Amino acid sequence: MRELKIFSGRANRPLAERICNHLHMPLGRVSLGNFPDGEIFCKFEEDVRGRDVFLIQPTCPPVNDHLLELLIMIDSCIRASAGRITAVIPYFGYARQDRKDEGRVPITAKLVSNMIARAGAHRVLAMDLHAPQLQGFFDIPVDHLFAAPVLDDYFVEQGLMGERVVVVSPDEGSIKRASIHLKRLGSRLAIVDKRRASATETKQEHIIGESVAGRIALMFDDMISTGSSMCGAARLVKESGATEIHVAASHGVFSGHAAENFRNAPIDRVIITDSIPLAPDKQVENVQVLSVGPLLAEAVKRIHCDQSVSALFRDDP
Amino acid sequence: MRELKIFSGRANRPLAERICNHLHMPLGRVSLGNFPDGEIFCKFEEDVRGRDVFLIQPTCPPVNDHLLELLIMIDSCIRASAGRITAVIPYFGYARQDRKDEGRVPITAKLVSNMIARAGAHRVLAMDLHAPQLQGFFDIPVDHLFAAPVLDDYFVEQGLMGERVVVVSPDEGSIKRASIHLKRLGSRLAIVDKRRASATETKQEHIIGESVAGRIALMFDDMISTGSSMCGAARLVKESGATEIHVAASHGVFSGHAAENFRNAPIDRVIITDSIPLAPDKQVENVQVLSVGPLLAEAVKRIHCDQSVSALFRDDP
Amino acid sequence: MRELKIFSGRANRPLAERICNHLHMPLGRVSLGNFPDGEIFCKFEEDVRGRDVFLIQPTCPPVNDHLLELLIMIDSCIRASAGRITAVIPYFGYARQDRKDEGRVPITAKLVSNMIARAGAHRVLAMDLHAPQLQGFFDIPVDHLFAAPVLDDYFVEQGLMGERVVVVSPDEGSIKRASIHLKRLGSRLAIVDKRRASATETKQEHIIGESVAGRIALMFDDMISTGSSMCGAARLVKESGATEIHVAASHGVFSGHAAENFRNAPIDRVIITDSIPLAPDKQVENVQVLSVGPLLAEAVKRIHCDQSVSALFRDDP
Amino acid sequence: MRELKIFSGRANRPLAERICNHLHMPLGRVSLGNFPDGEIFCKFEEDVRGRDVFLIQPTCPPVNDHLLELLIMIDSCIRASAGRITAVIPYFGYARQDRKDEGRVPITAKLVSNMIARAGAHRVLAMDLHAPQLQGFFDIPVDHLFAAPVLDDYFVEQGLMGERVVVVSPDEGSIKRASIHLKRLGSRLAIVDKRRASATETKQEHIIGESVAGRIALMFDDMISTGSSMCGAARLVKESGATEIHVAASHGVFSGHAAENFRNAPIDRVIITDSIPLAPDKQVENVQVLSVGPLLAEAVKRIHCDQSVSALFRDDP
Amino acid sequence: MRELKIFSGRANRPLAERICNHLHMPLGRVSLGNFPDGEIFCKFEEDVRGRDVFLIQPTCPPVNDHLLELLIMIDSCIRASAGRITAVIPYFGYARQDRKDEGRVPITAKLVSNMIARAGAHRVLAMDLHAPQLQGFFDIPVDHLFAAPVLDDYFVEQGLMGERVVVVSPDEGSIKRASIHLKRLGSRLAIVDKRRASATETKQEHIIGESVAGRIALMFDDMISTGSSMCGAARLVKESGATEIHVAASHGVFSGHAAENFRNAPIDRVIITDSIPLAPDKQVENVQVLSVGPLLAEAVKRIHCDQSVSALFRDDP
Amino acid sequence: MRELKIFSGRANRPLAERICNHLHMPLGRVSLGNFPDGEIFCKFEEDVRGRDVFLIQPTCPPVNDHLLELLIMIDSCIRASAGRITAVIPYFGYARQDRKDEGRVPITAKLVSNMIARAGAHRVLAMDLHAPQLQGFFDIPVDHLFAAPVLDDYFVEQGLMGERVVVVSPDEGSIKRASIHLKRLGSRLAIVDKRRASATETKQEHIIGESVAGRIALMFDDMISTGSSMCGAARLVKESGATEIHVAASHGVFSGHAAENFRNAPIDRVIITDSIPLAPDKQVENVQVLSVGPLLAEAVKRIHCDQSVSALFRDDP
Repeated sequence: MRELKIFSGRANRPLAERICNHLHMPLGRVSLGNFPDGEIFCKFEEDVRGRDVFLIQPTCPPVNDHLLELLIMIDSCIRASAGRITAVIPYFGYARQDRKDEGRVPITAKLVSNMIARAGAHRVLAMDLHAPQLQGFFDIPVDHLFAAPVLDDYFVEQGLMGERVVVVSPDEGSIKRASIHLKRLGSRLAIVDKRRASATETKQEHIIGESVAGRIALMFDDMISTGSSMCGAARLVKESGATEIHVAASHGVFSGHAAENFRNAPIDRVIITDSIPLAPDKQVENVQVLSVGPLLAEAVKRIHCDQSVSALFRDDP
Repeated sequence: MRELKIFSGRANRPLAERICNHLHMPLGRVSLGNFPDGEIFCKFEEDVRGRDVFLIQPTCPPVNDHLLELLIMIDSCIRASAGRITAVIPYFGYARQDRKDEGRVPITAKLVSNMIARAGAHRVLAMDLHAPQLQGFFDIPVDHLFAAPVLDDYFVEQGLMGERVVVVSPDEGSIKRASIHLKRLGSRLAIVDKRRASATETKQEHIIGESVAGRIALMFDDMISTGSSMCGAARLVKESGATEIHVAASHGVFSGHAAENFRNAPIDRVIITDSIPLAPDKQVENVQVLSVGPLLAEAVKRIHCDQSVSALFRDDP
Repeated sequence: MRELKIFSGRANRPLAERICNHLHMPLGRVSLGNFPDGEIFCKFEEDVRGRDVFLIQPTCPPVNDHLLELLIMIDSCIRASAGRITAVIPYFGYARQDRKDEGRVPITAKLVSNMIARAGAHRVLAMDLHAPQLQGFFDIPVDHLFAAPVLDDYFVEQGLMGERVVVVSPDEGSIKRASIHLKRLGSRLAIVDKRRASATETKQEHIIGESVAGRIALMFDDMISTGSSMCGAARLVKESGATEIHVAASHGVFSGHAAENFRNAPIDRVIITDSIPLAPDKQVENVQVLSVGPLLAEAVKRIHCDQSVSALFRDDP
Repeated sequence: MRELKIFSGRANRPLAERICNHLHMPLGRVSLGNFPDGEIFCKFEEDVRGRDVFLIQPTCPPVNDHLLELLIMIDSCIRASAGRITAVIPYFGYARQDRKDEGRVPITAKLVSNMIARAGAHRVLAMDLHAPQLQGFFDIPVDHLFAAPVLDDYFVEQGLMGERVVVVSPDEGSIKRASIHLKRLGSRLAIVDKRRASATETKQEHIIGESVAGRIALMFDDMISTGSSMCGAARLVKESGATEIHVAASHGVFSGHAAENFRNAPIDRVIITDSIPLAPDKQVENVQVLSVGPLLAEAVKRIHCDQSVSALFRDDP
Repeated sequence: MRELKIFSGRANRPLAERICNHLHMPLGRVSLGNFPDGEIFCKFEEDVRGRDVFLIQPTCPPVNDHLLELLIMIDSCIRASAGRITAVIPYFGYARQDRKDEGRVPITAKLVSNMIARAGAHRVLAMDLHAPQLQGFFDIPVDHLFAAPVLDDYFVEQGLMGERVVVVSPDEGSIKRASIHLKRLGSRLAIVDKRRASATETKQEHIIGESVAGRIALMFDDMISTGSSMCGAARLVKESGATEIHVAASHGVFSGHAAENFRNAPIDRVIITDSIPLAPDKQVENVQVLSVGPLLAEAVKRIHCDQSVSALFRDDP
Repeated sequence: MRELKIFSGRANRPLAERICNHLHMPLGRVSLGNFPDGEIFCKFEEDVRGRDVFLIQPTCPPVNDHLLELLIMIDSCIRASAGRITAVIPYFGYARQDRKDEGRVPITAKLVSNMIARAGAHRVLAMDLHAPQLQGFFDIPVDHLFAAPVLDDYFVEQGLMGERVVVVSPDEGSIKRASIHLKRLGSRLAIVDKRRASATETKQEHIIGESVAGRIALMFDDMISTGSSMCGAARLVKESGATEIHVAASHGVFSGHAAENFRNAPIDRVIITDSIPLAPDKQVENVQVLSVGPLLAEAVKRIHCDQSVSALFRDDP
């Protein structure tokens, strides 16, 4: 079997190290930097010829730099005769630009997918893609992981489960996601109902379903950007009598006024994963970062050994 | 400018004729048939060299035959030096297989998209794709139309608008679709709430939002397959006091027990479009078929003349 | 070496089972079916990751369904990270549409070849392609088997060889094929001469070459569709005094009025292979079906083990 | 409409000039030559930007040089922004290597087709391809002309038609070709019968069908290479009493001992076309060269003007 | 003829405006911006369907952002059915990474070329590419302009020509470039000789050729990055008695310590073009920016009108 | 590991044999020849299925024949299911046509690269490519070797090193190449200075740098074509007092009047490698041919075994 080698771009080197630690192997050596004019340079410092190479690079902000660096690393590996190249992209930038809602706009998520495949990646390992259809943007195999079990395990460990908690869907579009967690936590569901009764009326929000009064509310999303809608929902949940509010998401992007939004919201804890590194300037209070390193490491190992990856999330959607 | 020519496969020749009538031009002559062993034969009976060719073929059931016929027509046009080939696919078969919900399944919608592009189509004209991400399955341009205005115009004409009616979303996932109609009809929204409060409880249905009692209920979907969920929702709406129930969808697939389901449901009228021809054996009672022929004709004309197609649905999502 | 796995589409599962039996291995588990609207669903029930996968699917009638099913299976395997995918197509539908005899017709055999390659098959295993140029329709490797030795072995076993029999070519175009069998059977050749002496005269048929009177006549073709030309030739051969007539072909398509044609023709036995399953409604009398399962099994084994396949038909054309 | 420009490689400049003369336009200026080490250089001496460019280059011997020169001309045109490039290949070298008759051989005709398309040609104009399946080796449009009417017109002009002549097929494989000429010449058919009655017997030749005694025999083929089989057939025809023998072919390759073969054979005249220039060292006696320049010119004009090319050979196979 | 439309990315909007001014046409309207997480959004605010679209975007620093923005604009145009898309890239970022000088490094210039072509650009308009081989990195047509005449015209206008000036090549590798200017300026050549006599000796610099003492020295390069080698050469030239030193380059990148380097060097004037906008933080003293807008405008016009572009630089290398 | 097999085209079979000898393995058997009309035939006489195949074929003159033969061999291997195909091209024909110096010319080096990749080669092994950018003409991996150490080893062996010799760069463009040899030989540098001081003056040549008087001069180039510039430089070096002149190049093309040029030049020895076979009619006197067989053999072995190739030339540019 071809030797396994793991390299990291500069987007999230700590995550890559956690993956390697879990696999008891060293992280591969690669020199990455910028010339004075900002152009990226790249040199793999160890042989990749014929190897089974995994490149760890979430395309989180600054997205264009991280994406280009990934493409440049792929090009280097192709030209250095790597046996197989898997782009490990725990957070997939531009994923929300996956459709044409109006005329004359791009479908940047498809563009990015095409770039990755054209550069020469043989496969992709992704996590919690914004829309499941994104897998179809590739013709190369995509293994798709879910961080939900990692989040649920944390809540179970903390005793935040069963009757004590209510899973609150922050809007109608997230009911399906919320339902996934219900089963594992043995809890019940409430929904923040933001619909507009008619086109001319103001949008009104209220909570339907299970009562949150006197309970701990858990809210889930796939990613937190500015956090404004999540913070808005939290306010309503708080007003409705919830004792504590915990917010969890796979990807902690924390862009724009996220820090401020969370500081001002009645949220007790924000749980995210390390798919994206938490920049010092994005620091929000009470953040708990869970590692998806072991999950990714297991997937890397299974891909390398031709073992089933879907077995990793058998009981997930 | 290259001459415009429109041809029809055998999936929906009446629709093609309506498009041509609207454009005051004859439908192009093409011989299509089956050899004794079932293989399709195809011969264009008029010159397509350098022409701007539109091939009308919804890939409705029998989907495989209609898809292959479309591909064979494209191949014929390519080899006959057509100037540009637009595959007009008002109903896109296999569209619901657009993701991998589990391991070792296909993404057939992507496969089909790849086949159409590989055969040589230069562009696609589609209508009410099941998921907007499907546009991103193509790298060739896709113009995407919406039948919603056609449906709404009908209701307005019938006076089914304003206070008299309530737009009912048959489930939470359809609220966005329902909202599109609210504005045009000047009506208000009710929602059939089917959620499960916890993993162990039975699913319970009730109606939230605007009261349907004593009003006419309108329910919308993108396509009607077996119709079972729509019929279930209708029953609840009826029990809640609606005086009439009208169901509308862009695509009337009517598969499986659809006829029986609708016969037994308290639905006063089913409004669909002619994107799919209504097979005699799929005849459900009280069906009203609206034609999208004029809409498609307008789009064909605009594409041919390099005019904006998005202007056709400026006020749509 | 990557593990060998064999799966069957729904076109000819018995043949796939014979191949597996011959190789003493189980047929792989895959769920195939149709949704209520006729769309095919597919799920591989065992892991194919990294495996050497063979998909058995002759594209016999209904050709469009069997072709799409093959493409869908290939797509599933690609996305499930199969190591190598060989499409085993013992009968290649649309093979006769391999040229443009007139303007504005497709070359469907090339279209189909392009679809199979575009879907992701890495190689093709075919048998008795209608024209040898079809191999050139692919840029991926094609291994091409011949069923002729299977047919000849049967006749030798039955003692139908040497002086007792005459190999009769049913038309001038089949002389080359007939010659292949002469050598193995140690027999002599007669030809049904159907040519037209000039453009205005009626076509006249007579037999030239070796006399068939008092001998057993054997006639070969690559496939039997409606069988009308074969039955016509048989009548002439019978009138010329042949005591028995045996007709043999690699592929028994039996389309159109084949059953009736054969019932009315003076043919004592029709020998075909199991490249296509014999549908109950296509049952003609006196059919003898020989299995190409062992031949295909041997080819599959050799491909899997990187052994020469051409060695299988060293003494064939 | 984009301006038409015609250029010639060095394979057959006289033919290109005849085409241009027929179209009353000058042949485009292009510098072609060889560097001291034999590498080809190429420079178009007039603008091709946006033009409708036709490159005349039969890939006759020396085939590799002529093929490379064609590819280099295509590359030049692509990089010079030609609007459309049609490779006009009246004789298609390597056409006979169109199948794998044995293991581990190339399908060079497909390789060459792939090279032409990869270099950037948008379409091909060919004449009398060795096998009609070759059209399917391309995915770009191929217009396929037949020289047969040019040959027949010559014979009709010479009064070589009707009862005076017999069309003789030089072998069974050429009966179909011979039949095409029967109709136009109003003559009858004879066949040189070369078949072997059994595998162990010597091949015996005799003539069947119409008697050639006291008549003028016409024999047709698609190309004449060494001419040995044609000369052999001529000898038999002569012995059978033919008064004159005329041999006609679309392509006069005259390779190997062709000149000697024809000198020694009882052939009164050899009629070929100018698809290939007749090299001085290939000079055979009594050769009559007919020009396909007008036919190609007409096809070029029709392709340029988006008119039907198949109309050129409506009554041909 | 398809309508011409010119749009600008955010890399150098003033240059795009100059191009449009020169062509007396408005710059096309396109919305470009960044979401809070830094992802680029793009919407063309006017119709591009069927239009001949030129996208002006030098990929100058920040190179990754400008490159991605270009790709996203191309994707938008393709999906909006633009008739033809020309990427106008006056400065081509990553051009210097055009080879593998050592193992396991990328050829980023090729990667970038592949990305541009894969995104869907039909052609490229570039200026003073770092190596002429870069044109060969594309299979789509590349029109390549030279800014040298713009620089020379400036010097001629200033009277800096003939005997008064000496053209100084700052190193041996730039002699060819310097020679181009000699002819137009009617001046003579001096060379800064930096070679190392043997591997162990220190590099020594002196000036050979024409004497610079008492003359005005002009030095040319394709781009100025940090300017350190240019400033070093200037020092030597000054010490050798030059009265004035003028430095000219097509591309003013001014990266790293460029401003400081130039401040400390005996350079009287730095002449660059506006291929790259001069950022305020890169301001060096005595910079004179010449506009290549008219040159690019002329090229755009010629490409649009299918006129020769090479005629623009007939007397250039 | 897949078995290694090495085959040779007809361009340089002795080199292939030297490679095989070095690896202690037999050269693979392949039949190559020409049909009477000059078309190449090819049949691999031993199995390549799944093997790691290396095809040795420098594309030296006659370049078109050798290139086509290489492509045909690749096509044969692809269709015969070779596991991996490496085109070993020690001399790369058409390499100098790597840019567009003027309008409407090809970039033949890119065309040739595209042909090799399109035919199906998985990788290329080249040596001393004319421009390093040529690696970027491929998207498949290219391993690039340098013959310089082979040449230097020869000189060291002959004692032609150190103070006794001067390395002379025959023009300014070759200084970089000369510098590479300086270090290994421990010698000093002189340069033939051919520049023109102004556009109107005659070019004047003189030698700068280290004095050649009374020393042995060594001159290096990548290839020798007609040798005229090398011979011109030699004359100047001789006049300047060099005692002996040795000329060395990787590729001995010897085209045009090379033999005559060298006969008349004061060159004591010409050292080349066997990358190109020395044709009898190209025989120049005092030629010493060094073998790159061991170097290529080592590279083949390393590629086959997934070992670093760049390690072979660690101290080279």
